[in-house]
Amino acid sequence: MVKRSPLEEEILARHLRPTKKERDLICGVADEILAAIRESGKAEGMVVGSVARNTWVKGDRDLDVFMLFDPAVPREGLERDGLALARAVASRFTDEFCEKYAEHPYISACIRSVDVDLVPCYKVGNPTSIQSAVDRTPFHTRYIAEKINGLVDDVLLLKQFAKAGGVYGSDQMTEGFSGYLCELLILHYGSFSQLLKAAAAWRPHLVIDIGHHAAKEFDEPLVVIDPVDPRRNVAAAVSIDRMAEFIELARGYAEAPSGKFFEIPDPPIISRDDLAALLEERGTALIAVTFRTPPYIEEIVVPQLKRSVLAVTAHLERNGFVVHHAHYRMGTARCIFLFEMLVADLPKIRRHMGPPVWNRVNAEKFREKHLAQPLPGPYIADGRYETEVFREWSNAAAFLSSPALLSVSLGRHVRQSLEKDWQVTEGAECWDEEFAPFIASFFARCSPLTRIQRNE
Amino acid sequence: MVKRSPLEEEILARHLRPTKKERDLICGVADEILAAIRESGKAEGMVVGSVARNTWVKGDRDLDVFMLFDPAVPREGLERDGLALARAVASRFTDEFCEKYAEHPYISACIRSVDVDLVPCYKVGNPTSIQSAVDRTPFHTRYIAEKINGLVDDVLLLKQFAKAGGVYGSDQMTEGFSGYLCELLILHYGSFSQLLKAAAAWRPHLVIDIGHHAAKEFDEPLVVIDPVDPRRNVAAAVSIDRMAEFIELARGYAEAPSGKFFEIPDPPIISRDDLAALLEERGTALIAVTFRTPPYIEEIVVPQLKRSVLAVTAHLERNGFVVHHAHYRMGTARCIFLFEMLVADLPKIRRHMGPPVWNRVNAEKFREKHLAQPLPGPYIADGRYETEVFREWSNAAAFLSSPALLSVSLGRHVRQSLEKDWQVTEGAECWDEEFAPFIASFFARCSPLTRIQRNE
Repeated sequence: MVKRSPLEEEILARHLRPTKKERDLICGVADEILAAIRESGKAEGMVVGSVARNTWVKGDRDLDVFMLFDPAVPREGLERDGLALARAVASRFTDEFCEKYAEHPYISACIRSVDVDLVPCYKVGNPTSIQSAVDRTPFHTRYIAEKINGLVDDVLLLKQFAKAGGVYGSDQMTEGFSGYLCELLILHYGSFSQLLKAAAAWRPHLVIDIGHHAAKEFDEPLVVIDPVDPRRNVAAAVSIDRMAEFIELARGYAEAPSGKFFEIPDPPIISRDDLAALLEERGTALIAVTFRTPPYIEEIVVPQLKRSVLAVTAHLERNGFVVHHAHYRMGTARCIFLFEMLVADLPKIRRHMGPPVWNRVNAEKFREKHLAQPLPGPYIADGRYETEVFREWSNAAAFLSSPALLSVSLGRHVRQSLEKDWQVTEGAECWDEEFAPFIASFFARCSPLTRIQRNE
Repeated sequence: MVKRSPLEEEILARHLRPTKKERDLICGVADEILAAIRESGKAEGMVVGSVARNTWVKGDRDLDVFMLFDPAVPREGLERDGLALARAVASRFTDEFCEKYAEHPYISACIRSVDVDLVPCYKVGNPTSIQSAVDRTPFHTRYIAEKINGLVDDVLLLKQFAKAGGVYGSDQMTEGFSGYLCELLILHYGSFSQLLKAAAAWRPHLVIDIGHHAAKEFDEPLVVIDPVDPRRNVAAAVSIDRMAEFIELARGYAEAPSGKFFEIPDPPIISRDDLAALLEERGTALIAVTFRTPPYIEEIVVPQLKRSVLAVTAHLERNGFVVHHAHYRMGTARCIFLFEMLVADLPKIRRHMGPPVWNRVNAEKFREKHLAQPLPGPYIADGRYETEVFREWSNAAAFLSSPALLSVSLGRHVRQSLEKDWQVTEGAECWDEEFAPFIASFFARCSPLTRIQRNE
């Protein structure tokens, strides 16, 4: 076993290993819930996730309890009976619970300050016969619980390292490393320090196949074949940028290890006045588009926001406006698209290229169409007709405020929201209490290692 | 023989066929010069060009007289003796003469209001043994003079049609049709109207080989093999745009023939106030660069101006400035580059792309280089490092005024002139008495047919 550094040991002791009190609290809640499920006689209870694997970080209060039903129960039956059982169990402990929905519905409850998810699933014989993604989780838990002995501290270090570096989480906004992926990487490389040493030299399309059983090709930047399912890439959510950021963090830590690599940074902030001063200094034009958040979960909305911002950016650039940086954020009530423009105003004319003169039919059509206009042209350039025409949009904000925005290929639910209404603001008026941290990070773009090294 | 239309006959009679008086004048001058050369006993005189071929247009006053020397005379001897003879001959008629230089020196004189060029050349046995380009001219004259009988009027129509359309002249500024090319086209197609009918369907890389003897491949847009030299393209000077303009004129004339197609337009004009108003209306930024005309002939300077404007335009666009239209003009004392910009001012920041993160050595160099800067970044985008940097030029006029202009790949003599001095002016200040017609045409860009049809 590779030795950990005194720095790592200190961080583990002070910040990462749960206390006995925490452990007793969470395990106590878990035991009581399992007992309640057992008493119901309707399903088999199983603790999954980091609590079951002993890989939760101090301060975490998340407990996942699965309720395994017989696979003979039809899907609608499972949803109805599963949810009823979860409700019944939860209500024995608290009134603070609600229904949530991922692939199928579950109950989220707060029991003695522990956030408990009660998730119905099928008890299947092996992971290739699962009926929904959650059915796979018990297999993950068993796989890790069996092998993680002696490596728990390394998992804790890795999870905290990834969290502090902003690359932890397989949600659509983060596009980073899940807890299960962290556990597999530690199992594969044998320790936190060996993983980091290897990661410093990672290249995209790396394939890690712990079970030596990959059953298909994957084209994601990082491929870690699920040891319990040869057709699944555990790292499918990891974007090329999160992978690259992990690589640079690994290099930076190897070069100059420090506690900074484990400290979750305070979110950046910016005031309206600071934003006004910053825009004045940068000389750029800021435009925000805000609209009601579509009534769907993050996994559905965020990819649509991403696609929509790319499409709007492409449309702006096709019209001659130069986008320096564009990003998006999904808030609870509203979403925002933010565009920082190098060029947001253009003269009202533009060149319009026509057909080659030898293409007689089209050339004559083009000439006739543009002959009577009040602008220069048609003229010939490189053997083609060309003419000046009036630009459709000479101001980026005017385009973003117009119904033409809806003609851009937006995500479906984003379009539905915009069809009701949207707001366009410019300059420091883009500032907004809810989105201030987002706006601050928009203007403080830097990689995690840059942030750590600049703060030193 | 194809009949000409009444319109064409009227134009020929009223505007194109030289009068008897003109004919007598020019032929009289020609005869006297030939006599003077004969008397010298040093060379053989020969009238070449349109006068010799009977294809000159009413009002033309250009007489080309060649003095053919024995090829045994060495080149320096030809230049010395040839020029001495030309001077001696000219001085018998006038004091108004001067030395000019194309491929080699000749004398240009004004004799009884006729512009006479006295050009020494070698009398070679056949056109493939010529020693300089002018030696080929007597062969052209003999070839055309022998065959042009009955087609002279068609040549006159074509020359005037090409002049009025702005496509006549094989000089570097025009890049159009020479007189000899006009004659060959009429010979090849048999009449003005048959040429126009064919030209309406021309496509680039058309090859016309009257002598059926092409001895190499040419890649110019229009290829007309010289019947007296199989290795020469008579249409080498014709640019793709002049060819296309000729095509559209041919189509336009076929559709609606009119005297407009034979009227040379007045040069456009623009006042300083008109320019100011126009720029205000267009919303564009105009920038002019002016400098002393390099002391070389148009054939050398104009291609350098063209290349220089292309290079400066490319440099401006690489720096984020958007050039809507750029052009150049060679004046007697000064040359001008004119740039109409859609974007002439930019924020002082820009994005700067670095290496992929996996390229460890370069990635770390890039990070270190940009870490301490007062701008956001380095950050990771699509797996590569990227950062914000300060833009080298945030104003196009500032770049054009700076010594950095000299780092662009300019023509040699253009650079030599700029190395001494240049001026940059902006907006209506670009207006200049000498260049006013150029500036007017810069803003009235249209093809010849567009001009004719719009004026109707």
